[in-house]
Amino acid sequence: MKLLDPLFRATGCQAVFSDTGTLQGMLDFEAALARAEAAAAVIPAEAVAAIEAACRAELFDQQALAEDAAGAGNLAIPLVKHLTAQVKQANPDAARYVHWGATSQDAIDTGLVLQLRQAVTVVEADLARLQTALVEQIQQHRHTVLVGRTWMQHALPTTLGLKLAGTLDALLRHQERLQELKPRLFALQFGGAAGTLASLQDQGLAVAQQLAEQLQLTLPDTPWHGQRDRIAEVAGWFGALTGTLGKLARDISLLMQTDVAELNEPAGEGRGGSSTMPHKRNPVACAIVLSAAQRAPALVATLLGAMVQEHERGLGGWHAEWEALPELAQLAGGALTVLAEAVAGLEVHPEQMRRNLDATHGLIMAEAVTMALGVQLGRLDAHKLVEEKCRQAQAAGRHLLQVLIDDERVTFYLSADDLSRLLDPIHYTGVADAFIQRVLSRAQAGG
Amino acid sequence: MKLLDPLFRATGCQAVFSDTGTLQGMLDFEAALARAEAAAAVIPAEAVAAIEAACRAELFDQQALAEDAAGAGNLAIPLVKHLTAQVKQANPDAARYVHWGATSQDAIDTGLVLQLRQAVTVVEADLARLQTALVEQIQQHRHTVLVGRTWMQHALPTTLGLKLAGTLDALLRHQERLQELKPRLFALQFGGAAGTLASLQDQGLAVAQQLAEQLQLTLPDTPWHGQRDRIAEVAGWFGALTGTLGKLARDISLLMQTDVAELNEPAGEGRGGSSTMPHKRNPVACAIVLSAAQRAPALVATLLGAMVQEHERGLGGWHAEWEALPELAQLAGGALTVLAEAVAGLEVHPEQMRRNLDATHGLIMAEAVTMALGVQLGRLDAHKLVEEKCRQAQAAGRHLLQVLIDDERVTFYLSADDLSRLLDPIHYTGVADAFIQRVLSRAQAGG
Amino acid sequence: MKLLDPLFRATGCQAVFSDTGTLQGMLDFEAALARAEAAAAVIPAEAVAAIEAACRAELFDQQALAEDAAGAGNLAIPLVKHLTAQVKQANPDAARYVHWGATSQDAIDTGLVLQLRQAVTVVEADLARLQTALVEQIQQHRHTVLVGRTWMQHALPTTLGLKLAGTLDALLRHQERLQELKPRLFALQFGGAAGTLASLQDQGLAVAQQLAEQLQLTLPDTPWHGQRDRIAEVAGWFGALTGTLGKLARDISLLMQTDVAELNEPAGEGRGGSSTMPHKRNPVACAIVLSAAQRAPALVATLLGAMVQEHERGLGGWHAEWEALPELAQLAGGALTVLAEAVAGLEVHPEQMRRNLDATHGLIMAEAVTMALGVQLGRLDAHKLVEEKCRQAQAAGRHLLQVLIDDERVTFYLSADDLSRLLDPIHYTGVADAFIQRVLSRAQAGG
Amino acid sequence: MKLLDPLFRATGCQAVFSDTGTLQGMLDFEAALARAEAAAAVIPAEAVAAIEAACRAELFDQQALAEDAAGAGNLAIPLVKHLTAQVKQANPDAARYVHWGATSQDAIDTGLVLQLRQAVTVVEADLARLQTALVEQIQQHRHTVLVGRTWMQHALPTTLGLKLAGTLDALLRHQERLQELKPRLFALQFGGAAGTLASLQDQGLAVAQQLAEQLQLTLPDTPWHGQRDRIAEVAGWFGALTGTLGKLARDISLLMQTDVAELNEPAGEGRGGSSTMPHKRNPVACAIVLSAAQRAPALVATLLGAMVQEHERGLGGWHAEWEALPELAQLAGGALTVLAEAVAGLEVHPEQMRRNLDATHGLIMAEAVTMALGVQLGRLDAHKLVEEKCRQAQAAGRHLLQVLIDDERVTFYLSADDLSRLLDPIHYTGVADAFIQRVLSRAQAGG
Repeated sequence: MKLLDPLFRATGCQAVFSDTGTLQGMLDFEAALARAEAAAAVIPAEAVAAIEAACRAELFDQQALAEDAAGAGNLAIPLVKHLTAQVKQANPDAARYVHWGATSQDAIDTGLVLQLRQAVTVVEADLARLQTALVEQIQQHRHTVLVGRTWMQHALPTTLGLKLAGTLDALLRHQERLQELKPRLFALQFGGAAGTLASLQDQGLAVAQQLAEQLQLTLPDTPWHGQRDRIAEVAGWFGALTGTLGKLARDISLLMQTDVAELNEPAGEGRGGSSTMPHKRNPVACAIVLSAAQRAPALVATLLGAMVQEHERGLGGWHAEWEALPELAQLAGGALTVLAEAVAGLEVHPEQMRRNLDATHGLIMAEAVTMALGVQLGRLDAHKLVEEKCRQAQAAGRHLLQVLIDDERVTFYLSADDLSRLLDPIHYTGVADAFIQRVLSRAQAGG
Repeated sequence: MKLLDPLFRATGCQAVFSDTGTLQGMLDFEAALARAEAAAAVIPAEAVAAIEAACRAELFDQQALAEDAAGAGNLAIPLVKHLTAQVKQANPDAARYVHWGATSQDAIDTGLVLQLRQAVTVVEADLARLQTALVEQIQQHRHTVLVGRTWMQHALPTTLGLKLAGTLDALLRHQERLQELKPRLFALQFGGAAGTLASLQDQGLAVAQQLAEQLQLTLPDTPWHGQRDRIAEVAGWFGALTGTLGKLARDISLLMQTDVAELNEPAGEGRGGSSTMPHKRNPVACAIVLSAAQRAPALVATLLGAMVQEHERGLGGWHAEWEALPELAQLAGGALTVLAEAVAGLEVHPEQMRRNLDATHGLIMAEAVTMALGVQLGRLDAHKLVEEKCRQAQAAGRHLLQVLIDDERVTFYLSADDLSRLLDPIHYTGVADAFIQRVLSRAQAGG
Repeated sequence: MKLLDPLFRATGCQAVFSDTGTLQGMLDFEAALARAEAAAAVIPAEAVAAIEAACRAELFDQQALAEDAAGAGNLAIPLVKHLTAQVKQANPDAARYVHWGATSQDAIDTGLVLQLRQAVTVVEADLARLQTALVEQIQQHRHTVLVGRTWMQHALPTTLGLKLAGTLDALLRHQERLQELKPRLFALQFGGAAGTLASLQDQGLAVAQQLAEQLQLTLPDTPWHGQRDRIAEVAGWFGALTGTLGKLARDISLLMQTDVAELNEPAGEGRGGSSTMPHKRNPVACAIVLSAAQRAPALVATLLGAMVQEHERGLGGWHAEWEALPELAQLAGGALTVLAEAVAGLEVHPEQMRRNLDATHGLIMAEAVTMALGVQLGRLDAHKLVEEKCRQAQAAGRHLLQVLIDDERVTFYLSADDLSRLLDPIHYTGVADAFIQRVLSRAQAGG
Repeated sequence: MKLLDPLFRATGCQAVFSDTGTLQGMLDFEAALARAEAAAAVIPAEAVAAIEAACRAELFDQQALAEDAAGAGNLAIPLVKHLTAQVKQANPDAARYVHWGATSQDAIDTGLVLQLRQAVTVVEADLARLQTALVEQIQQHRHTVLVGRTWMQHALPTTLGLKLAGTLDALLRHQERLQELKPRLFALQFGGAAGTLASLQDQGLAVAQQLAEQLQLTLPDTPWHGQRDRIAEVAGWFGALTGTLGKLARDISLLMQTDVAELNEPAGEGRGGSSTMPHKRNPVACAIVLSAAQRAPALVATLLGAMVQEHERGLGGWHAEWEALPELAQLAGGALTVLAEAVAGLEVHPEQMRRNLDATHGLIMAEAVTMALGVQLGRLDAHKLVEEKCRQAQAAGRHLLQVLIDDERVTFYLSADDLSRLLDPIHYTGVADAFIQRVLSRAQAGG
């Protein structure tokens, strides 16, 4: 499915999860294992160099590995065979100690963790990029008033700054979560055939400690071959991140509608054209992000469902993780990359926002009048009165201000001047700015 | 993720959904469109040959297409551009009529339908293979008695024939469903930019009819660019098929447990070995099928969720289909291929089945005694009495027969001979054989 | 969660799946079983009346059943106990034959099938209602032109008739599918403890035939306790139906946006008001349908995933069906009920549709000009030229017609009159009407 | 669906999410709002008492609220109306200030957070109970050796202590995650109609601060009406927790198989019986937990997918949360309650574990021999040799020890005594005990 890779996976994560990346992850485990076991005097120190030298992904025949994996049931079995053969050519003695005391899952799981660590680095850089873009847009549009919409209807004025600040706020939380989960996620898996490291006799824990140090991974209290909550947690994180991105893409796409025209994705050479309609500019970035947001939840569900694994190594559940998690990371990463770019280059049309605010002839300010009257009449009675006035204005095609001025029940409490001021959307943005300030401060404090 | 393709996608479907297959699907649409429009005198007949000649996937630079697709938002836009350029070189006049009156989605959706038609052919062949394997095993093990298990506990005897007949029965239903959905699924998508074929003026329907004929596809009553129930239906079919396969794989894997040892997947050179444990034979085929069964439901959910598309062409929902449906078809197809092979070569251990039937010292026949006593005592009272006898037999480590013979409440109604006969598992398989006969007859009648 | 029932489950399906409905489903099975077994001379004919008389849901203490079910692991075990006790009071002899030869799953699965049959009747009535409403709206708005939108951008004109005809077309397909699946779904489950009906000796099949007749259900070739494709199929159907409903609700909600204002859900007393904003009218029906469309795919995934059940009765998978399938049916049914009502009362604003067609000053007609020029210049060159003109018109704030008239490359081929005609959206609806006619004919032919 | 509540929702969470619980959550918000606004001098202090007095769920007609919600589109609109009416009766002046400046979503979301806080308390208590049960079983079975199984095949010996320690380790991580997410989850939602608190003019933030304090909730930097990552995070947590529980239930159910018989769920009066088979004891607790584990992932997916909400208040996405999240919490909670009980009363059969270790006549110890030979021959050659010996032993039905003793390639390096020691499963548990110690220490340190 490479044809769609640049579209959906425009991200450094793709390289991390390439076939070569996957092999290298496992080979890094095997090399570190040799070093750790030599350090713990479990294997001869002389064996290390030959093993390390052979632990380079480009030395392997990927086609052969792929075919052997179909029979073996996983990639590590043929990889270890081929690796042993490689080492044997250089140093037959060293070849004896390849993969010493480890099991396939040790290599596969730890290799995956090493890939995830790289992927997280990529994602963090893109997250920072998106946050920077958001901060800039928020600062620039801190006071740009536009229609706030609820249930997809005009509700009240808000500011573009606050709209974007909501996303920034969520991203700061995602960042916080990511910091918290890292020590849990970046954990060594090393248990040997059944999780007891029995083949290393009493040296199991010593080797495990060395190995964790070598790879700069957490040494978990127990091997986690059968306990997949680490996988589930990072999957949930990618899933929720993609949801946050999808929410922003949904909003951008709604604001880009020809009928709304308040925003535009940045135009690019050959970006977003139609094959038949010369006038169109399609929100391609939004489509990519929304597509990822449509797909990510199911991938998370797959990984949560796959947690129910049997005994010391699952049958099917473990296998289901192998493609689902990298797929999820790449789709999330691709969405993030694309959205960071789109936000940075967002075209904003404040004059159209103003036009849309005025389009309903004052109706959008109904709540302001209600609140002002509510002090006198009570909230619910004021609500009923203003609702009646709104219907009247709509039916007559008049501005709400005119209709209100004509009603003595209103003017008894509020003068024409009061009403005029109350109906000005620009000044009815409440504490939007204070909210913005809070998020910006947190963003500037580094999340 | 090619490294895992032979493992998870050991199926002809993989070729169908390769990048080349995807391009060829769209190009077949473009070639047929030229023919259809010439037939309807919408474009000059002279243009056809040049267009057709250029509609071969191997003529295109896949890397360039992939990169352009990232900007364009879909594959058809760059493909049409490159195709037009190709045609222009051979025949500038013909180049004017490439993709005439069509839109990207027409090419993409119809191309997908053409791929699905090929995939269904592959799947049907494998389905036939699995059914044949099942029929053979059923015939061979029509009277092979083994423990029937409910709630993962020994329940009553059943036959291996009936166990497998249940799967065969389900597969025959899946085949029936597939026949029903074909005319709906194998339908032309052709609507032009917004589904009205406006660019073809009053010739739209005539071209559509020609085009459907050319491609031997159903001409739908309306274009279905925004109505994705066809996609959802075939997704549901693949999902349910995978569920049926998964159920059989689960059963095989349970019967293959070292502690049960009633069945074995066929052994093959380098198949199912462990990297550390020389004595092991891993159920690799089951792992593949169970992994597919873990992943398929979420892919179906993605495609169902993606049905909620906006207006005349969706944003994100449509894009979410592009990889999810081929992925689903390939995983289902891979599972089917692997399971067909496993069933054909299944190793059956009837003597161990018999041992397991006897392992509970008659407890498995408790129901037979209950029913015999129930005629006298009523079902519920008989149930209570036999339950008591079972507990007693277990506690004392005695055979249920002995315990029953010792109880006058039992022997009042049933002689030792009666009891001995009642406790023989081999003859307590009810109408299993009649059930088997029904399914075999249907299978032989061609589903 | 009753508080939200009228909102989300405004449907006859809710009654079908009430606690009472669930009990009655199982009791109908038990009563029919007694009749069938008496007919097959397996139990005495005298036992039937007493059993039948006790098989009324209102005779049972639901609280007690619910509590006992928690220990027993399913509802049928306590129900059979309570039923036997009931019968015993009236006729101790008859009590012996309650549930004779059946197992819990026979009662639970067949009871569910009976409930599903009722639910399908309810759903079919609502489907008919929605189709009638669509036919009426299509006929009324067969020539009502509005903006066709792709990627959420103005694309080309289309008609409201065609938009709705797409949904009608999909619903006719759903109806077709429903007819096809009925004989598979409405199937007896009757296999006894392990699927062999061993407890009925050689009478198993005869009883099963009688029972299927009694309940007017299909007699399947084999019991399906472990083969859940029937459940998966109907789940997929409900899921895809909900997707189709969600697509229409999405479109209505987009067209109801204050900024678009082309449609309105019917207003009702206290329907769609806001707690704070007196001017708002919220699309409540759309929210209900979209919510169902958000939830249904996951429920389908649950049921597909649950197909992987162990041996002759699953552990957990079967249990997962019990609430998920009724929930799915009720949410789908609720969405259908609400949407049928909304479509019937849809408020359409053709004058606003016209305004929106004109809002882009001719840009929406760009394709028409492209096609006209394409005959001369080739499709791709014409596309480039018109694209340039569109950009120019937008930048200058001029109508596309003016810009085109000013360009000799255009007027060389097309006169001002030609252009004027080409730029009229009302006549650029292609074969929309022919498409509509096809669907209406099929609808009138009864699907 | 009350009939299945005691089975699936045997948890305090059920009360928390009852209809009354839901109303009370919103009413607690309304009461606190009045207090906060009085404290900020936004409403008269005199209004508070009357409002507070009316904020008791039992004062409301739930049927009426449910019906009104169907028209209004949410529960808060009718609740506020009924509440205002209640207050009016006691104090017409106070009635003016009910729900002052708030919007429906403020009440619904904050009410939900208050319910979640209660649910988390319940869940934490059950988590503690399960952890205590695990610690006790681990301590008791720290040295109980049983077969470790991978790919559902016998692999190597392990200990029951280590098996359970893996789950305990995962639960400690879940607990850690829960502590981390609490401040994010237990956050006030208060934004008014569009998230700006405009109706409170410049008092919005002050009221928000007072309100957060009143309810002891985090005051978020921005309102989160459109940013649903908090919901997604707790959903992911419940989902992953359920996965961990499901994994343990799967293992227990596998070990409870009649063919394995190493464990039993605690028996209880009327617990786990069969309706037809008197000898059976069904793993009801496992079924409940596995059913929850089958259903939870899809509910998480629903909530992740629902994150893509429109603008300042979503249409459908928000509504999809209302039942899905409480459902998820209750199913997870029910599974936790049931499993805590099952683990506490687990019946362990060490003698049967020993029998199963011996069942393969030494094959389970093949790795030990391989490692011993590996030092001499290299890992891969040793693997091949021992694999050959295993096959030979199996074929001949001999104990592996005998076969090894007969082979000079083996005895050249290892004496009969060496081999005898190597083949003793009891001492081949590696560093299992050290792993256990690590987890127990962390558990005792309070996670």
